[in-house]
Parts: sequence; structure tokens; C-alpha cells
Amino acid sequence: MTLSWRRLGQDGAARAGVLSTAHGEVETPVFMPVGTAGTVKGMTADAVRATGARMILGNTYHLMLRPTAERVARLGGLHRMVDWHGPILTDSGGFQVMSLAGLRKLDADGVTFQSHVDGSKHRLTPERSVEIQHLLGADVTMCFDECTPYPATHEQAASSMRLSMRWAERSRRAFVPREGHGLFGIVQGSTYDDLRAESVASLTAIGFEGYAVGGLAVGEGQAEMLRVLGVTVPLLPQDKPRYLMGVGMPSDLLRSVRHGIDMFDCVIPTRSGRMGRAYTSRGNLNLRNARHADDGGPLDPDCGCPACTRHSRAYIHHLLKCEEMLGPMLLTWHNIQYYQDLMARMRRAILAGRFEDEAAAIEQGWETPT
Amino acid sequence: MTLSWRRLGQDGAARAGVLSTAHGEVETPVFMPVGTAGTVKGMTADAVRATGARMILGNTYHLMLRPTAERVARLGGLHRMVDWHGPILTDSGGFQVMSLAGLRKLDADGVTFQSHVDGSKHRLTPERSVEIQHLLGADVTMCFDECTPYPATHEQAASSMRLSMRWAERSRRAFVPREGHGLFGIVQGSTYDDLRAESVASLTAIGFEGYAVGGLAVGEGQAEMLRVLGVTVPLLPQDKPRYLMGVGMPSDLLRSVRHGIDMFDCVIPTRSGRMGRAYTSRGNLNLRNARHADDGGPLDPDCGCPACTRHSRAYIHHLLKCEEMLGPMLLTWHNIQYYQDLMARMRRAILAGRFEDEAAAIEQGWETPT
Repeated sequence: MTLSWRRLGQDGAARAGVLSTAHGEVETPVFMPVGTAGTVKGMTADAVRATGARMILGNTYHLMLRPTAERVARLGGLHRMVDWHGPILTDSGGFQVMSLAGLRKLDADGVTFQSHVDGSKHRLTPERSVEIQHLLGADVTMCFDECTPYPATHEQAASSMRLSMRWAERSRRAFVPREGHGLFGIVQGSTYDDLRAESVASLTAIGFEGYAVGGLAVGEGQAEMLRVLGVTVPLLPQDKPRYLMGVGMPSDLLRSVRHGIDMFDCVIPTRSGRMGRAYTSRGNLNLRNARHADDGGPLDPDCGCPACTRHSRAYIHHLLKCEEMLGPMLLTWHNIQYYQDLMARMRRAILAGRFEDEAAAIEQGWETPT
Repeated sequence: MTLSWRRLGQDGAARAGVLSTAHGEVETPVFMPVGTAGTVKGMTADAVRATGARMILGNTYHLMLRPTAERVARLGGLHRMVDWHGPILTDSGGFQVMSLAGLRKLDADGVTFQSHVDGSKHRLTPERSVEIQHLLGADVTMCFDECTPYPATHEQAASSMRLSMRWAERSRRAFVPREGHGLFGIVQGSTYDDLRAESVASLTAIGFEGYAVGGLAVGEGQAEMLRVLGVTVPLLPQDKPRYLMGVGMPSDLLRSVRHGIDMFDCVIPTRSGRMGRAYTSRGNLNLRNARHADDGGPLDPDCGCPACTRHSRAYIHHLLKCEEMLGPMLLTWHNIQYYQDLMARMRRAILAGRFEDEAAAIEQGWETPT
């Protein structure tokens, strides 16, 4: 049987369920920490597990360049190389390649691009992207697509989306079905309701194990993102998982779960951690700020991670001032912990039929002065 | 009772014992990972503990500048700030301050220097150094001394050593005796046997809870260092711990334990880890080397650390190539683990009366091709 998702509860449009994969079950809604080059930056795999994270993401673009998909396969696959025994989702490389402005050339068949590492020439097609993800050993493979730039005219968005739909069909044909593995289609169409509907229709006609919403969080703002989710998600099959790609801030997660999204990934918690920022139950903190220099209290009194239970804000501030690795390490750990706790809290509320009460309490917490 | 050391076994000059401190007992010979600015670089306190390390080092010079000794004291002391519940030894700042060529001015009373961080002016005297170490909460306080530069003429070395001896007396008077805490004197005298003997005589006349050998590993080479230990260590009291400051490579540790040294600290395992180098039972490795790119084997088959049991050399090589934090994190962890394992192995051999056999086996291992 391919990868599957089972709904265990629903409150409004918000859903709680279980994703079953070749590497075990994952409770949804789920946030997947991003392990771009085969590591969640600044964390051991043990630390990632300790936060409660059960599924991570790997990047086709980065891994195909270094250490290469074939080398990962020779080393026993990404799970073994990374020491991650739970499921892994890999993106298709489409998003990263499209970001290489000036270094890539798109044609109907695929994309030719230059490596950001050494300038060497590479090519990605739907078939090669799916093959790479197979070599990596992904539990969830993503269709190769073009992430439509924002803003785009209706004509640009339509043409880009239809290219992605043809590539989705080719990705489907290229994907080798395996027990517990699955392929996700990616809905495009920018901010145009008719194009989003057309994209959903194209993808559901092909049939996928899950459906991602792509092309959002690219500059349109949260309100517009949520509006697009509002018109797109209801069109998606009820019995398949829904994945909002590359999103986002804690409030994005909360409000997208409300719209029926089950899966998320984003570099924000890890990247912000490296920059000295913490997401907490009382809102966001910049630990570089001098006001933390003498603060013996924890980052977040409601958090059980080592940064919060063992150390003070003053210590983390000190580590950042001294450019000690442990500062980013502790903040990254905390942020991933906070994201995991937030998802678990939403899940419990959905199952208890009190999602809106909990959402209000969470949002109120963010307004609490720290 | 002040800090004390008890001998449990001896084989030749090599000793095994237990150091009793306000923060628990530590088996010797011991290697203390260096936590310069209040963190063993790249490791959580839990990770340091997991290697078996039981005592760490903090730096007066770095901590007095950031976050300042008074702030550490307000935050409950260094143990609490760092989340380290075992003993901590602090250096006196002497070594670092003397390294600030051009930024410091020595007089008979102390040293005035400029911060490497912001150029601000500071002063260290024996009294202030001991006070800072008290504010930090050190279990072992080091006398403020001048680390004699190498090479030095007999006259320079004598004058520098005698200054350190006067400062040792002032450090002793400034030190506030507390249960389980102690002050260590530091033997100077460069490579001159008569000066080393004079220094030992001066220090033992004052009386300390332990004796450090300073001014070595400053360019004289291992053979000369061991020769100086050979003439110095036999003069030291049998019932006090002996600490060789800032040393060293694995073979330095092995050969210094043979001379009766009980305690070590050094930045080599952490610094080398950040540079991509590993110390193993089969010798040293540079993980940046391309020969590791496809090597699915562990760093060290005899090591139980996460880098060795969970990951391949190829993965660590990949992490270093991508400049991922996890590369230095894993190599630092491994190196500290290797140093701890090496000390434990020597200790067991001393207690079993087979130190020389074990030393030969260890040295042979380093010659095994990997």
C-alpha cells in the first residue's frame, strides 16, 4: 500500500489525522523541520527527535549538488546518512532552481541551471527530479513544478501553472510506487481563484497520495495567502493530506490549520534561531537585545526544551554577543520545540472540538508582554 | 575542609586518584574540556556530560570582559549559568593577558590591558584575579602569574618566575577558604632546572591545594616539555594534585601521565574539531580530505560517541564541505569523547598496574593505518 492519511477528528475545517509511511506514522497537523543539505542546521538528529518532531524535509537541489543523489544512495540513503529513522519528505528542486535568477534556463522539458557552489551545469526534469528523490529514499516525493513568481499576470500564472500540470503528469508516470511511499501534486495558480481551481482539477484527475499548495508565502502577505487557501483547500480531496509549502510564522501555521492544512515546512525557526530570534508562547524575542543581558528568566516559561529549562535569557544573550555556536544551537532547538508544541497543542484542541478557543488563547499569549 | 586529592593507585610515576570538590568527586588523571566564555564551544552541557567529562575550565580573561564576573555572580554563578553541576577550574587570566602583546602593560603590582573586544581598559592584579574567580564560583582557583615567554634567558626566566612567586603569595592571602574549594600554585622557571626547583620551593613554602606546571607547551617541543616535567614533578608534594596547563595532543597526555601529571586542559580537541580534524584510536584524521567522501565507515570504530555510532566519515566530510554547523559539532563531540576515553583507559591501566603495556598499545593504535 502506498503512503496514506487517515482523519481522526475535525473541528470546523481544521483536521487531525495520522500519516502512515514506510518509516512510521506521523500525527497531523505536523511541522517538518527543514534539513536542507541533510542536517537540520545546528541540531543533532537526537535533538530534533527530542522536540517531538517525527518527519523532516530534505532538499533535492542541495543534495543533488552535494554529496549527489548517487552518493547518498551508495551510503544507504538519506535516512541512514542523516540518522533519521522517521519519514522524510523531499522537495523537487523546482523552488530552489527557479530562485537561481540568471543562472537557469527554463524550457518545456525542464530546467538547465548552474550550481551556486562551483558554477557547474546541471539539468532537472520531472523524470530526473523524481529519480533523485527515489535515490535519496524519500517517503514523500514532490512533483517537479515551477513556483510561479509573485506578482504574476493572469496570463503568466496560467501558463506557468499549466506547465507545472504537464510536469505533474510526467512526475506521476516517473514515480515508482513502493510500499509506504507516495507522490504529492502541487497546486499552483498564483492568487487567481479560477487558476487554483483549474490546477486542483488537473491534479485530482491524475491522482496523488497528497496535495500541496505551492506558490504562496512569496510576497502576497498573510491575508491574501489565507484567502487563496480559503478558495483552494475546499476543492481538495477530503481523504488526502494537504501540505502548505514553505510556511511559515507561528500565526501562519495557526491560521492555515484553521483552513484545513495538515503539513508544513519552513526554514523560519532554524534560520531565526541562528540570527538570535526566539518564537515563544509570549511572542517573539530578539535575544541580541541588551535588555536581556541581566535577565535570569527563561526564554519561554511554558517550554520544556534545554534552552528554557537549563539556561537564562542572559546566558543566551551572552553566547550571541560572543558569537558562540551554542547560542544559535540553543535558539534553534527552542524554536523547533516551540513549533512542535504549537502543532501538538492545535492537534489536541481539534480532537477535543475546541480549536477556536485554543486558537484564541494562543493568539492572546503572543500579545502577553515579556 | 578545602578541596583535596586522594591517591588510589600508582604505577611507576603515573597516578590514579580522586579529586574531592564542592561540586563532587572527579577521577584522575582527568582531562578538563575548555569552556572559555562559559561554553565548551559547539557542545551543550548535556553533551559534555555524556562524554564522561566531570570537570570543565572557564577563563577569567574572557568572562571578566563578557558578561563580567559581577554579572555571572548576579546570575547565580558560572555553574548555574552554564548548567554545569560538576567542578569548574578557572584560570587566572594571566596567560591570556600576557598574550595581548602591545595591548598590555606589566608592573610589579599587576597588569593593565585593553580588551580585545572593544579596546576598553582593564586591570588584573593577584587580588582582583582571585576575586573574579570567587565571583565566578570556581572550585579550583588559579594563582595570578606571568606565563614566561619562550625562549627566555636565565635572567628573564628568573625575574619572571620570581614575580609570579610574589604574586602567588598575594593570591594565597587574597583567597577566601571555602568548603571544597582550593587554590593552585603555578610552577614557572621556563626550561631551567634550577629555576623550576626554586619555584617549587617557593610555592610549597606557601602551601597550596594543588600545583600546576605552567609555561610549557609554548614552543619548546614535546621532548623538552617532558624533560622539564621529569625534573619538576618529583619535587612536588605526593599528596596534592598536579595540573599541566594547556596541554595537549593525545601523546602529550599519555607521556605526561607517565611523569605523574593528574590534570589537563587544552583547546586542541575542540578547536581541531571545528577545523575538521579528529583524534582517534587509529591516529589523526582530516575529515576535509576528499578520500573520506565515499567512506561509509565510522570516524573511529572503537568510539561510542554519536558521531561514530550514528554517522559515517562520508557524512561528516559532506557536512564540512557544506559548512554545516553539525560538522564541527559532531567532530568536537567525538574529540572530547576520545580524550575522555583515553584518560579513562590510562586510569584503569594504572590501577591494574599495567600502565606501560597499555601505553604501548595506545601508541601502536595511533600507528594503525586508517
